[in-house]
Amino acid sequence: MTSAPAASPTRAYRRLGVEERRAQLLGAALTLFAHRAPDDVSIDEVAAAAGVSRPLVYRYFPGGRQQLYEAALGSAAEQLTLCFSEPAVGPPTERVSRVLDRYLGFVDQHDAGFSALLRGGSVAETSRTSTIVDGVRRSAAEQILLHLGRGGGPAQEPAGPRLRMMVRTWIAAVEAASLIWLDEEKQPPAADLRGWLVDHLMALLAVTAASDEETESVVAELLAQETADGPAGRLAALIVPVAGHAAHLLSPE
Amino acid sequence: MTSAPAASPTRAYRRLGVEERRAQLLGAALTLFAHRAPDDVSIDEVAAAAGVSRPLVYRYFPGGRQQLYEAALGSAAEQLTLCFSEPAVGPPTERVSRVLDRYLGFVDQHDAGFSALLRGGSVAETSRTSTIVDGVRRSAAEQILLHLGRGGGPAQEPAGPRLRMMVRTWIAAVEAASLIWLDEEKQPPAADLRGWLVDHLMALLAVTAASDEETESVVAELLAQETADGPAGRLAALIVPVAGHAAHLLSPE
Repeated sequence: MTSAPAASPTRAYRRLGVEERRAQLLGAALTLFAHRAPDDVSIDEVAAAAGVSRPLVYRYFPGGRQQLYEAALGSAAEQLTLCFSEPAVGPPTERVSRVLDRYLGFVDQHDAGFSALLRGGSVAETSRTSTIVDGVRRSAAEQILLHLGRGGGPAQEPAGPRLRMMVRTWIAAVEAASLIWLDEEKQPPAADLRGWLVDHLMALLAVTAASDEETESVVAELLAQETADGPAGRLAALIVPVAGHAAHLLSPE
Repeated sequence: MTSAPAASPTRAYRRLGVEERRAQLLGAALTLFAHRAPDDVSIDEVAAAAGVSRPLVYRYFPGGRQQLYEAALGSAAEQLTLCFSEPAVGPPTERVSRVLDRYLGFVDQHDAGFSALLRGGSVAETSRTSTIVDGVRRSAAEQILLHLGRGGGPAQEPAGPRLRMMVRTWIAAVEAASLIWLDEEKQPPAADLRGWLVDHLMALLAVTAASDEETESVVAELLAQETADGPAGRLAALIVPVAGHAAHLLSPE
């Protein structure tokens, strides 16, 4: 059982061909599903895009469009999950900025498909596709908690319920902002949107820290790693005049 | 055409009966759909809950479960939209708090149905149900913009793109937080969640104001209407020590 018998060259060649063909069909499907709603993509178009016959597509994907859609979604979900992977080094707001730049790049490249998937209302969406999307959300939340120093596991304490709810809520806000951004013809520019989403996370951390002790220690640890010329320093400087409008609330006349 | 001919008493009686019966069936369906995923509710159960026969349900709703689901959803959407209606009087954070209390009451009373609807993956969700849900989101955004003093129309200036995106993003965050709240067995208590969601809105306004001039004037106008003992005053007092952790970003050594 330790060494498998060598496959015959013919068999090895045919096996590779099968995998390559499958990858080629999936690639063609992904491109089509990225820029159109699933209900608007036909098997004939996938076949044409891959330069093969309709029956050949069905030989590889007997479940037709639904099976191709789920396979393409699974592959896109893997790509998207990779976007969130970022070494835990340097100021946390800069790490989150890099993650968001990759995420917004993905959204930009899969615009119509991303929108159709998250908006719902397509017959191609099932409990299986929802499970795939939820898996992406879950790994996004885990990655963010890691950068907040509360990733759990052997290296970090696990996050409490408030902090987890905060992170999941922020991720939903990022998703919603991406959909609005696509609706608004990708305005403001991606870099501005990214900056605002990082500011949003800092704001949410600050107000959650105001009523949750655990979040307050997280914020203290995070801010200690930030610099005056990074995103946190820039926001701190800009928020001072805004905070000035609340002065009367602190020292009522 | 100004005065309609008086209907015969028999006809008026029968017409009322039809409306009443329809309302009764819809009420039974709403109760079932509020606490279960649409795919788990059968016409037999609706018939049993209303104390009528299965064929009678089909006489009123020939489209069966799908038609009943859409009608129940339409009726729930009207109820939910009413929750957002709040006179534009008093400190804005207190108005938003009252709106959120009613909204969370609705979420509490329609828990499983609310969750199933927004999670997706049910065959009962179509582009028609998505349109109903989007309509609710749109009126929620309009109501919030009204309390921010940028409702448009004859009385107020319309909001610019940043402020609109901010409000829609916050609404998505409220929705996501409600779903997490339902998952977490309605913890923290609704009043705590409401307080945090109001804090979230203030935080988002503050950081958006940091990079958007229009939002800065909105924040200045809003804060002028707040009091030291209201939600804004409470948050201002609690945020001061948190902001202290950022002191090194403002005056780098």
